[in-house]
Amino acid sequence: MSPTSDAIRVAVVGATGYAGAELVRYLARHPRVRLVAVTSEQSAGKPLFEVLPSVRDKIDLRLEPFDPAAVAKQCDVAFTALPQGKSAEGVAALLAAGCRVVDIGADFRFRDPAEHARVYGPHSVPELLRDAVYGLTEYARAALPTARLVANPGCYPTAALLAILPLVERDLIEADGIVVDAKSGVTGAGRTVSAEYLFAEVDDNLRAYKIGQHRHAPEIEQQLRPFFGPDHAVTFVPHLLPIRRGILSTVYVRPRAHVDAGAIEAAYRARYAGERFIVLTGSRPPEIRDVTGTNDCAIGWVLDPKSRTVVIVSVIDNLGKGAAGQAIQNLNVMAGFSETDGLDHLAVVP
Amino acid sequence: MSPTSDAIRVAVVGATGYAGAELVRYLARHPRVRLVAVTSEQSAGKPLFEVLPSVRDKIDLRLEPFDPAAVAKQCDVAFTALPQGKSAEGVAALLAAGCRVVDIGADFRFRDPAEHARVYGPHSVPELLRDAVYGLTEYARAALPTARLVANPGCYPTAALLAILPLVERDLIEADGIVVDAKSGVTGAGRTVSAEYLFAEVDDNLRAYKIGQHRHAPEIEQQLRPFFGPDHAVTFVPHLLPIRRGILSTVYVRPRAHVDAGAIEAAYRARYAGERFIVLTGSRPPEIRDVTGTNDCAIGWVLDPKSRTVVIVSVIDNLGKGAAGQAIQNLNVMAGFSETDGLDHLAVVP
Amino acid sequence: MSPTSDAIRVAVVGATGYAGAELVRYLARHPRVRLVAVTSEQSAGKPLFEVLPSVRDKIDLRLEPFDPAAVAKQCDVAFTALPQGKSAEGVAALLAAGCRVVDIGADFRFRDPAEHARVYGPHSVPELLRDAVYGLTEYARAALPTARLVANPGCYPTAALLAILPLVERDLIEADGIVVDAKSGVTGAGRTVSAEYLFAEVDDNLRAYKIGQHRHAPEIEQQLRPFFGPDHAVTFVPHLLPIRRGILSTVYVRPRAHVDAGAIEAAYRARYAGERFIVLTGSRPPEIRDVTGTNDCAIGWVLDPKSRTVVIVSVIDNLGKGAAGQAIQNLNVMAGFSETDGLDHLAVVP
Amino acid sequence: MSPTSDAIRVAVVGATGYAGAELVRYLARHPRVRLVAVTSEQSAGKPLFEVLPSVRDKIDLRLEPFDPAAVAKQCDVAFTALPQGKSAEGVAALLAAGCRVVDIGADFRFRDPAEHARVYGPHSVPELLRDAVYGLTEYARAALPTARLVANPGCYPTAALLAILPLVERDLIEADGIVVDAKSGVTGAGRTVSAEYLFAEVDDNLRAYKIGQHRHAPEIEQQLRPFFGPDHAVTFVPHLLPIRRGILSTVYVRPRAHVDAGAIEAAYRARYAGERFIVLTGSRPPEIRDVTGTNDCAIGWVLDPKSRTVVIVSVIDNLGKGAAGQAIQNLNVMAGFSETDGLDHLAVVP
Repeated sequence: MSPTSDAIRVAVVGATGYAGAELVRYLARHPRVRLVAVTSEQSAGKPLFEVLPSVRDKIDLRLEPFDPAAVAKQCDVAFTALPQGKSAEGVAALLAAGCRVVDIGADFRFRDPAEHARVYGPHSVPELLRDAVYGLTEYARAALPTARLVANPGCYPTAALLAILPLVERDLIEADGIVVDAKSGVTGAGRTVSAEYLFAEVDDNLRAYKIGQHRHAPEIEQQLRPFFGPDHAVTFVPHLLPIRRGILSTVYVRPRAHVDAGAIEAAYRARYAGERFIVLTGSRPPEIRDVTGTNDCAIGWVLDPKSRTVVIVSVIDNLGKGAAGQAIQNLNVMAGFSETDGLDHLAVVP
Repeated sequence: MSPTSDAIRVAVVGATGYAGAELVRYLARHPRVRLVAVTSEQSAGKPLFEVLPSVRDKIDLRLEPFDPAAVAKQCDVAFTALPQGKSAEGVAALLAAGCRVVDIGADFRFRDPAEHARVYGPHSVPELLRDAVYGLTEYARAALPTARLVANPGCYPTAALLAILPLVERDLIEADGIVVDAKSGVTGAGRTVSAEYLFAEVDDNLRAYKIGQHRHAPEIEQQLRPFFGPDHAVTFVPHLLPIRRGILSTVYVRPRAHVDAGAIEAAYRARYAGERFIVLTGSRPPEIRDVTGTNDCAIGWVLDPKSRTVVIVSVIDNLGKGAAGQAIQNLNVMAGFSETDGLDHLAVVP
Repeated sequence: MSPTSDAIRVAVVGATGYAGAELVRYLARHPRVRLVAVTSEQSAGKPLFEVLPSVRDKIDLRLEPFDPAAVAKQCDVAFTALPQGKSAEGVAALLAAGCRVVDIGADFRFRDPAEHARVYGPHSVPELLRDAVYGLTEYARAALPTARLVANPGCYPTAALLAILPLVERDLIEADGIVVDAKSGVTGAGRTVSAEYLFAEVDDNLRAYKIGQHRHAPEIEQQLRPFFGPDHAVTFVPHLLPIRRGILSTVYVRPRAHVDAGAIEAAYRARYAGERFIVLTGSRPPEIRDVTGTNDCAIGWVLDPKSRTVVIVSVIDNLGKGAAGQAIQNLNVMAGFSETDGLDHLAVVP
Repeated sequence: MSPTSDAIRVAVVGATGYAGAELVRYLARHPRVRLVAVTSEQSAGKPLFEVLPSVRDKIDLRLEPFDPAAVAKQCDVAFTALPQGKSAEGVAALLAAGCRVVDIGADFRFRDPAEHARVYGPHSVPELLRDAVYGLTEYARAALPTARLVANPGCYPTAALLAILPLVERDLIEADGIVVDAKSGVTGAGRTVSAEYLFAEVDDNLRAYKIGQHRHAPEIEQQLRPFFGPDHAVTFVPHLLPIRRGILSTVYVRPRAHVDAGAIEAAYRARYAGERFIVLTGSRPPEIRDVTGTNDCAIGWVLDPKSRTVVIVSVIDNLGKGAAGQAIQNLNVMAGFSETDGLDHLAVVP
């Protein structure tokens, strides 16, 4: 497929990480985008197909080291997909040079520099935090068309917030006792070369990690704060699954008195009516492979009458709606494209 | 290894299911047991090694159809590892013929015939339910030495109850809001030949199932009832992992006011002091492979101060402490053997 | 993406098997095809999205039982993806009603009814065998534009023949001693519900099967017969991998005296020059994931000087080039479309 | 289980690699061995259970840095399980101090220093190579009782040689055209922290590597040289499987004229009669899980009449018969113990 003649020009900064490679996969098929630059520090100078064999004969680009001025000269929009702490200064330079940016990393997700500092350490360009739009697309549409900088949400927050927010917006649940039990495939950690991610350590295993300490918990809390106040806390426990892609979040919330199953259902149906990337499965919980390779988030729920708990199950592909997919969805809204442009893939099953 | 001359004689009824095969694996190395009979309806007549290749040259037994009288004549104790609903009458016949029984199936786990009927349907020998000892070994030692019939607990209840009971016994947690988010490998479903357990459906996937409807929830509630009363409910959500063996339960409980981390720790340390199959890992949560191939249950916990929630992680091998291992541990207590006899394997890692 | 106004109309017969579902996935994005009918015996009456959740909101079709007359009335071309032995009569009826057919099953791959009978049993419409074009696209282009019936090759033969034929056509290798050691993911067996394909049996395991007896060996031999004569045999050993998709074939052939590495390389480069779905990797052997989710076949080779053996490694996605992808590639040639229409996906990695 | 009072004292040098940990697992249950020392450079100072959680309460040892003099003072026999090139000098020191050694690494497998140098680089104590016994137990029994130093064979050579040698010893096969297509789980590479062994790179993938260049090929050839002469070569192609443990070798050999299936069968039956760790499965090829967690090698074979090729399939656990298991089997012969002492485990299935 060739992009249309009025296509915008984009770059992927950090194209050889897992999220960066997924951006390339999606962008290669986007009808209104021309991919003009890909960067990588480690593989600079190599043709892209040496790192991503399946682009051979399809994308004729060479990996470059990341030079913000050079990227800004060639591109209208840059996607930055760099490890935490590595984006901030490059993004500032890209913006200064007139390039719009969707940052897939974690550097611009907090509005408050003090909170960023508590979670990640001091920010090198804290003044930019106020300008960044938190790009949970379904909740950010008003701000995106004029945004210069979009902070793509974390993968865990995306799955959790899409599940919780419809109930919170309608004041259907208690602030206390929200539990997010999240399970993620290994690409959630990026291409980290560390013993804990070796096949022999991950296969046929499961482990919880960073209980009460994961950096995505305050990111979730930031988005719930308008409803629940500054001291509100969720219980967030991530687990590492022996799979490559996908997050399944099982969320436990307590309905307010008199809230019944109909009110829960109505909240989801109303909030997500017309949404192209939200699939509501009702009382049949979705499974990870329903969304593998796509930008979909599928959500199901059950009100357990005996324990008076709502169990919500949401699934995303952490590289799709949790990273590259949502970044392109954000681009589409920013640029005024159809929101499904480049994102109308079916799940790869099995 | 040859068993001692005063070894007791045992049978495995249903030796070709996954739990039955694991019983054979453990019993083959038990110093005070002689395995004298193995049964299978489907493979009756075949030598055991045709179904379990690695017993070749090690166990010279032929699979027989299950005839309670014949088994009782040869054995002191029978392990019954049959699908739900298939054990009851055979167990009654074994008992009548003087054989002690450890039932790994689900037929004798409820004390109340009405509850059994609600969960599994009418019981064919309901009068036996009162005689069965619920064999969560660490909580059943007083009753086991004289037990004629032991109901081995379900795999999910084993992992959940070992995690919860120390806190409940000391009245440290609220009755409300107990959430058990459990993840299990596929052998938890036995050797069920069904499309949902095909490799292509399970691999690189995760799904929640039977939310609020799993039969192990009332089994957990039965054991908590002495503390929390007849109407108490837990929220229990099982998930199917793409692994063969192992359960990891993440349990969320709310500490009573004034309960602190020290009180939690003290409860676990005191309750499980001297226990050979309980491994306490403190604030480092255990992972499934710590216990694969063993009878261990490993437990870690964290009190999340912000959300005032205790997160407990417990892991077992569902075929070990969740089935065959605990059955042999129960046998050891019943027969007066050392509790670790035949169970001193190290985990198979990686 | 909407198909163009002059799109042809196609049906997928057997849309809920693994190959059928992959046809749907590719066809949904094909710019010159309109998918108008999907059939399934087991799920007839259900909307397609109940079986393939990710088509929800994207493909609004209901599964029908397979009625050749009804399909032929709606469609220009039908893809039949049925178990072996189930296609023959339906295909005959489709052809009689004027529909062109690409049969993904095994019913029309042999030209000689006697050979078909030896391998699969008597054929119900043997007279059609002579009309079928064996659709190994790169070797069938001349015949495809006028073909009424295309027999899509088996997955193992596709991977093996694409690796061997360039050397055979140039008479570079001995007829004797050709070894095809093939390894396949489980979807090669279709959605067969059988104990041997359960997750617990396949995971962390590998097994060879049907040594010297697999039905794909005579299919390979049929295609080599023009070069090597009627009694020629290859040694073909398939293995079942614990993966969902993909075949890697390691092929061992003996170069004729005086054939050197340059001659081998030249044969591949010349034969596949300009081919869009053949990726030559030279002395770096390709791996399965290079092609997962695509119609590519990647081929690498090494001439081991010491043992005078050429080792060829070829990989395909058994559901792509081994089934649905090649079927659509064949359609494209049959219909005069660009050969990459609908097939320009990048591999889904990781 | 407690070892007997006359137990010998052993050390595991390199106890935290995968092979070292498997040695610990086996030795912990060995009735005539007392494990007195475990070493690790990286984890020196830590209790063993911090690295191998399941030894907690079972083995009360602390990891030490490797000091040959200290080890030799405490032990009768040392197992050295170190990366290639790291054993040679330590082994020399252990031997000089009077300790017998079974080296699991690759440093003493070649008899000829020049060949060692070609394959691995110059040897630091080449004079020891002549003293080392190549410990393929079934072919080394005469030399083991008096051996001071045993070179445990590589995992691939073990699987290949046990499959080939019975036919070679009886002169049943041609020297030319021997193909060993080997597939191994990732622990064959040890605990190497490298991107290529990350879960996301290995899962749902297969790749061939080091075609014609793997260091285990000359090791196989060394053992075949007495039969086939100095210039003989095998074609050896290893593949990396997405499993943790196990090797399956598919070996292709050409029977001499007039050799029939009966002669093949007779060779295996005669050669391995009475062998406790060789399981012959005849025409049913074994699968990897038949031997997981054991010291068994299972072998099946088929003479394909059409292509006149014998296909032999052999499987081992690369950490069992391919490393730790065979090392202990060698110890048992060296020390005059029963050959099955400590090795009578059943396979862990599923």
